[in-house]
Amino acid sequence: MNQKPAKASTSKDGASKDSSQKSGKQVAPITTRAQDYAQWYIDIVRKAELADHSGVRGCMVIRPHGYTIWEKMQRELDDRFKATGHVNAYFPMFIPLSLLAQEEKHAAGFAKECAVVTHHRLKAIDGEVKVDPEAELEEPLVIRPTSETVIWHQYKNWIQSYRDLPLLINQWANVCRWEMRTRLFLRTAEFLWQEGHTAHASEAEAREETARMLDVYADFAENVMAMPVIRGHKTPGERFAGAIDTLSIEAMMQDGKALQSGTSHYLGQNFAKSADVQFLNQDGKLEYVYATSWGVSTRLIGALIMTHSDDVGLVCPPKLAPIHVVIVPIFRSDEERAKVLEEAQRVRQALVAQGWTVKLDDRENMTPGAKYYEWELKGVPLRVEIGPKDIEKQSLCIVRRFVLAAPGEDEAALRQKKKQFFPREEALAKVPELLAQMQRELFERALRLREEKSRVIDTIEEYEQFFAQGGGFAWVHWAGDAEQEDELARRFETSIRCIPFANQLPEAARGEGKCILTGKPSAQRVVMARAY
Amino acid sequence: MNQKPAKASTSKDGASKDSSQKSGKQVAPITTRAQDYAQWYIDIVRKAELADHSGVRGCMVIRPHGYTIWEKMQRELDDRFKATGHVNAYFPMFIPLSLLAQEEKHAAGFAKECAVVTHHRLKAIDGEVKVDPEAELEEPLVIRPTSETVIWHQYKNWIQSYRDLPLLINQWANVCRWEMRTRLFLRTAEFLWQEGHTAHASEAEAREETARMLDVYADFAENVMAMPVIRGHKTPGERFAGAIDTLSIEAMMQDGKALQSGTSHYLGQNFAKSADVQFLNQDGKLEYVYATSWGVSTRLIGALIMTHSDDVGLVCPPKLAPIHVVIVPIFRSDEERAKVLEEAQRVRQALVAQGWTVKLDDRENMTPGAKYYEWELKGVPLRVEIGPKDIEKQSLCIVRRFVLAAPGEDEAALRQKKKQFFPREEALAKVPELLAQMQRELFERALRLREEKSRVIDTIEEYEQFFAQGGGFAWVHWAGDAEQEDELARRFETSIRCIPFANQLPEAARGEGKCILTGKPSAQRVVMARAY
Repeated sequence: MNQKPAKASTSKDGASKDSSQKSGKQVAPITTRAQDYAQWYIDIVRKAELADHSGVRGCMVIRPHGYTIWEKMQRELDDRFKATGHVNAYFPMFIPLSLLAQEEKHAAGFAKECAVVTHHRLKAIDGEVKVDPEAELEEPLVIRPTSETVIWHQYKNWIQSYRDLPLLINQWANVCRWEMRTRLFLRTAEFLWQEGHTAHASEAEAREETARMLDVYADFAENVMAMPVIRGHKTPGERFAGAIDTLSIEAMMQDGKALQSGTSHYLGQNFAKSADVQFLNQDGKLEYVYATSWGVSTRLIGALIMTHSDDVGLVCPPKLAPIHVVIVPIFRSDEERAKVLEEAQRVRQALVAQGWTVKLDDRENMTPGAKYYEWELKGVPLRVEIGPKDIEKQSLCIVRRFVLAAPGEDEAALRQKKKQFFPREEALAKVPELLAQMQRELFERALRLREEKSRVIDTIEEYEQFFAQGGGFAWVHWAGDAEQEDELARRFETSIRCIPFANQLPEAARGEGKCILTGKPSAQRVVMARAY
Repeated sequence: MNQKPAKASTSKDGASKDSSQKSGKQVAPITTRAQDYAQWYIDIVRKAELADHSGVRGCMVIRPHGYTIWEKMQRELDDRFKATGHVNAYFPMFIPLSLLAQEEKHAAGFAKECAVVTHHRLKAIDGEVKVDPEAELEEPLVIRPTSETVIWHQYKNWIQSYRDLPLLINQWANVCRWEMRTRLFLRTAEFLWQEGHTAHASEAEAREETARMLDVYADFAENVMAMPVIRGHKTPGERFAGAIDTLSIEAMMQDGKALQSGTSHYLGQNFAKSADVQFLNQDGKLEYVYATSWGVSTRLIGALIMTHSDDVGLVCPPKLAPIHVVIVPIFRSDEERAKVLEEAQRVRQALVAQGWTVKLDDRENMTPGAKYYEWELKGVPLRVEIGPKDIEKQSLCIVRRFVLAAPGEDEAALRQKKKQFFPREEALAKVPELLAQMQRELFERALRLREEKSRVIDTIEEYEQFFAQGGGFAWVHWAGDAEQEDELARRFETSIRCIPFANQLPEAARGEGKCILTGKPSAQRVVMARAY
């Protein structure tokens, strides 16, 4: 295509600036990251139609475009869970108060900001619908903030002997934590997640499971979300309430803050003891069962946005893109329209046959520029523009949503790479390659950014300066206690994101040293950062 | 295979009777339908490990075997929803009380037995975890019994003009109705379902959608669940609260009772009016939006059980079976064991390559008979038995969970058809055919049963007698009013299941006539039955 899109000027980043006025919908441009990072995030969530606030405090509506990303995440994760021997089940969302309070440390962590059901009936009183005061429950029910207690209560009936183990169950569900300050996807009162709850005959097996599921999460994060992560242990203070060990994957967002993206807990025998779940082991002796739990949530959509998106809108790795290719037909007359739409249909069918989700945007009363703008905002990886000249020349114009700049590459070269003409058949054959390349390049860019914003730091002065200047991941030696962790949090708003596994340490961060705060000897560095 | 399974006697229905004593688990035999139909149902649900009661009143735990059936139902339905242009989204589970009360008729129907959240915090008071009296919500939140109100409240922000229509959204979610008498799958306080909520620019289009989705449900019921259904309208008294028209599919269970298996509602402009959702139509005028909603739930698993299962246990149509083929190895010595397991692995791989889910049951300390018993109870469609003689002869023994008796076919002939030996390669090639046949035959048997238990009835005496003798579907003329419907319910515990579409009437039931109760002229017959 070499004619200009009718009536739409194209800005240097490829998005049409004036198009929103011409289209049926008025879409205001989004705030840039430089202007206001937090507002940029909200703009993308709202304007790319990923989620909305609802009428209920702190609860979000996940719109179809956002939910499709979640469905794709679910499919990828669920396939991995099943490939590692897990099955799905469903447990009640209600937890009797006494059950939630059963495991002491767990209760201390979760019996706080919860939604509590106290009544089971409404009634018209004086013509108004009200809670029936006579329908108070004997025992209040808590909407699950997590399901360990209710699930282990059930496992008691299912586990008698070592033959019933391991029990490898996962649940896809909604949960509720009555958060005071909420942010779409990142922290909402109700959210969607999966929670694995497994039961084992030995500590070694349960610990192995804990590590395996963290690996599943890391594989998913890196190879599907194109988001590099650091794997490690949480400090005691950051552990899941009731866990012996909590492992996590930590990702860096574009603003240098960390986002905990998945956790896997070794729970020891704590929950088995509080729910009294014993099994007859191979030696014929009764023993408490060993437990793990692990979860990721719709929070990952927030992580996805903040890892890849830009000032034009959402950038979505092809493996999670609701739409892979959008086709925009360009024409001036009815005659051109018929020809162009016919060709667009052929291209659509060819790409669908390759297995891609393709949107042919044949909306009328909307300029091509307005369409470009909308689909770039919504993060569609590839755009195919088809005009009469393309048909004549048997060529197609493919525009990529994202191209990684090679070191030293200038704007013009990048722009040329972004929008390319190919002979028709070559273009079709090129699509899988371009999508795979984008998937790779997004990971590479995120990794590059993380490296740029990571620093090996040895003094508290340098630490202070690093976070005063925007911060990122600080690799520091640490031998402080919980109180000293709090001190760091107070002074710099930073926390220990994780104590990385040995193989996660960059070369420059290896070796022993001295605690940045206390000067005490430290065996290895940890990752400190500000966090979401 | 022509040796007897080691140490297991086989009863005439193919299930081993003494096997449970030999296995690690004690599984009591299930109650027969003749003994106690209700208990038979519960036995299947519990002993086939489909679901369990939970510690919370009226709430069930869907166990992995049952949940896998639900996942397969979801996949089949979701594919059909997407093929008809729908997308998924997620809305909050909490509905502010005032919102639920907004649509008058809807409120009258649903603002009753609900779970109501009144507080948002727990607190340790005197060392005990209690509801914090200071954390009362300003407005109580109702756990959704259905989501029309919360969804239409949101649609207000998304719909401005006819260009935004139709809006075709579905949600997979948990809902809660505080039922007093619950039964696993059929009626529980919390259950899982999908609810479609669509918005249209005209009544005609919305009514078309209502009919289309009923067809999707009927197609799913008949072609996936192998469960014949009758499609029709509900009477005004049985309509969804707030609907102008409710369509349903009605299935007959083996005891002759009806089970409403899916509903699709034309809601007119009721919800648009109460939530004030107007759109600019093509003539530039503001108009209220037209709505539909439609849903099916985990209740369908109950319907599946009661349509196909027998006194041995669950019978599951292959299209929904969690496991299609179970392979049971048979051997007496370690040497035989090695050979048999090797062959079993080869067979497993060949069947997995065909796309089936295959379980190789190589558990030790368990007789083959005990394994037969367990997998028949759990409804696995095909069993392959492999012993040393089968390897020698290069043959395989395939046992079918269900074979439809041809008219006049005797027990012995049926048993011979049920368990057959084939040359190895032929057996493998035969599997898809046998599964397809079972799928067809289950539908055929259910249809036959429905025909046997259906009667065209013209007098109230005959009606009374029909239901005194067990009943079924009565095709009767009706011209009564709501009060007279209640009379029928009181006298016979029957209700009008639906006013069938004209094409749903069997030949003998067509034509005009006179109301069975009032003698008034009636244009067509309706289906009356007792119902779940």
